[in-house]
Amino acid sequence: MANFELLKDLLQPASTKIVLLVMDGVGGLPRPEDDKTELEAAHTPNLDKLAREGCLGQHYPAGPGIAVGSGPGHLGLFGYDPLEYEIGRGILEAVGIGFPVTDQDVCVRGNFCTLDADGRISDRRAGRIPTEVCQRLVTKINAADIRLSADVKVFVEAVQDYRFLAVMRGPGLSGAIEGTDPQRTGVPPLQCVGADDASSRTAALFNEWIAKASAVIRDDAPANGMTLRGFSTDPGLPKYREVYGLKAGAIAVYPMYRGVASLVGMDVVQHHAHTVAEEFEAAAQVWKDYDFLFIHVKYTDSRGEDGNFEAKKAVIEEVDAALPALLALKPDVLVVTGDHCTPSQMRGHSGHPVPLLLWAPATARRDRSAGFGERECAHGGLGTIRAADIMQLALAHAGRLGKFGA
Amino acid sequence: MANFELLKDLLQPASTKIVLLVMDGVGGLPRPEDDKTELEAAHTPNLDKLAREGCLGQHYPAGPGIAVGSGPGHLGLFGYDPLEYEIGRGILEAVGIGFPVTDQDVCVRGNFCTLDADGRISDRRAGRIPTEVCQRLVTKINAADIRLSADVKVFVEAVQDYRFLAVMRGPGLSGAIEGTDPQRTGVPPLQCVGADDASSRTAALFNEWIAKASAVIRDDAPANGMTLRGFSTDPGLPKYREVYGLKAGAIAVYPMYRGVASLVGMDVVQHHAHTVAEEFEAAAQVWKDYDFLFIHVKYTDSRGEDGNFEAKKAVIEEVDAALPALLALKPDVLVVTGDHCTPSQMRGHSGHPVPLLLWAPATARRDRSAGFGERECAHGGLGTIRAADIMQLALAHAGRLGKFGA
Repeated sequence: MANFELLKDLLQPASTKIVLLVMDGVGGLPRPEDDKTELEAAHTPNLDKLAREGCLGQHYPAGPGIAVGSGPGHLGLFGYDPLEYEIGRGILEAVGIGFPVTDQDVCVRGNFCTLDADGRISDRRAGRIPTEVCQRLVTKINAADIRLSADVKVFVEAVQDYRFLAVMRGPGLSGAIEGTDPQRTGVPPLQCVGADDASSRTAALFNEWIAKASAVIRDDAPANGMTLRGFSTDPGLPKYREVYGLKAGAIAVYPMYRGVASLVGMDVVQHHAHTVAEEFEAAAQVWKDYDFLFIHVKYTDSRGEDGNFEAKKAVIEEVDAALPALLALKPDVLVVTGDHCTPSQMRGHSGHPVPLLLWAPATARRDRSAGFGERECAHGGLGTIRAADIMQLALAHAGRLGKFGA
Repeated sequence: MANFELLKDLLQPASTKIVLLVMDGVGGLPRPEDDKTELEAAHTPNLDKLAREGCLGQHYPAGPGIAVGSGPGHLGLFGYDPLEYEIGRGILEAVGIGFPVTDQDVCVRGNFCTLDADGRISDRRAGRIPTEVCQRLVTKINAADIRLSADVKVFVEAVQDYRFLAVMRGPGLSGAIEGTDPQRTGVPPLQCVGADDASSRTAALFNEWIAKASAVIRDDAPANGMTLRGFSTDPGLPKYREVYGLKAGAIAVYPMYRGVASLVGMDVVQHHAHTVAEEFEAAAQVWKDYDFLFIHVKYTDSRGEDGNFEAKKAVIEEVDAALPALLALKPDVLVVTGDHCTPSQMRGHSGHPVPLLLWAPATARRDRSAGFGERECAHGGLGTIRAADIMQLALAHAGRLGKFGA
């Protein structure tokens, strides 16, 4: 992983600009008919040119074979070993919807569920209610203005489908709490249990809140109950400016990725982009304000999860077609990669090595890559590295690292 | 890095001989006209034959993208993770000029500087006085036969330009001392400050010495003052014989490399070599005395630092032309690599992966390499490894490691 202690000593000022372009879940598996992956099958003249001018490699987000979620995947790309820096689900949901977390907050993810007449869970996802229903229930709970026995406040926000966020704010709270989801049906939700004194007090307050909030929705079947899991607080990650000396901005369509970026100190760039081309336009708007831009493309992953090879390939081609606008900004270093692989054949994240492209006209050592694809990357000049080393490479190629030792 | 604990259990006796041939700064970047690096452009029939018979790879001395100095670069090649085994500047200067450091010594690098009438630094490098002036000032200080309030002796040696070495020798000294260079002008030099009792006593003695030595040169403007930094003692690195079971010798033209080799327990082979061919002759002279020879070629780096592609290429060709004499000694394992890259286009060290060639007629697994060059290495059978793993590979291919586990 990026060695923050070492980097602190090596950082040197520069006016160079770095772009980290993440095609979520970009790596894949070859399909039988032509033995090509989505990335290999896609028509990508611009990415192929970058590959020929730069150099390739592949990375493991958290070690060979480990399939990661988006949170750890992005932490890895940002230079934070995801095995060392764990982020709770609650805080991920919070930053994911842009909730302004403070150091007095304990965040937790909530699921609306269906309880039977005896209070036992009959559907852990409340029949997968749509987001609008979720929003209506959340509004109802907030309107009830629940008061607890201590001076704390609980914020509730709808997330998506049956999922919501609860944030308890107050002095002396702690997040070392076991969740209430029993992970099966036919039993009632569990009680929150704290691991120590402060967490036990916090757990008791959450139990009190759950009872009162559940009472508010008791007649709203199928969403007449709730479970909470992933209690967590702000992990206090070292920030980009401090560890890399970079003023960094994040451009992402999905809140989750803005959230993870904000945890490492990136500014969340405000924009109205939906397409990749619009995201690159947003990058152009703020180009002069940042040393580093993280640009996130979501739909490579989504289409991989759908199991739709052609649609994933089409998203890659959309990125390629939009690329000239990004290159026109003249980044000094451009890294193109994914946070993990999502082979459409597997309809989910996988632990295969992730394709990695490093383009830096002034400093990259060209290898023999003919184009951007998994098998070109496997033979690339960067070798096979850990995701958390990528930032170090980017800084070095941007002339932002001095020499280590005499 | 080499896992010394593991190796201790695996080492087995053998009569095989290993050569580590280091072409300092050998890695480069392709030039535009033919897309070749110095190593790729050089006519190297002998190295290319070794590459075809052996196998290639590449290494990162201290992690992807990190450009290292010669000290940490060589420590890495010798099997000592340079991020774990840091060597102070003072001790590096001392071993670099061949000063015979003992365990009673605290070494520090000195800079002559210019002080104004108020004792404030007006030039931190004394107008970059030439080495001869430095030597004259050092001679003058030594001639003053400065006595201190404790039974210690201070040795002073000129190094280069405005740089000198000071070594305090005596019982109970300690090197945990902050230096006196304020790193800016307009302020007086700082006082030495120790981190603990022993270091504070040592710091007080250095302060006493600085006052007396500075008085000696007070009329020698522009070099009428001094700063000291990089206080350090022998790092006590585990020695080659102990960790690898090797009787090792070092052949190098520059004192610095002999010095680093001596820190890991290599004998410094006495010779009068200047050219690579003469270094190989020196190797032949002592061939029967050693299990392991480190042979250092300096000028690949020097010409890279000069920004002279053709001259660096010529040094590589000089190595290649001399190689038959080395091969005639019939080493069982020959490793050819660099301590870091010095692309002539960058006129300095870089953090690109370093080409690595492992030749071992009896044990190397031939890969598909056609010749010795950066891009062949990127595709080589050894993969991309840490420098500190190379010694393990060399020992294994020399039949000097038994099996781990049943």
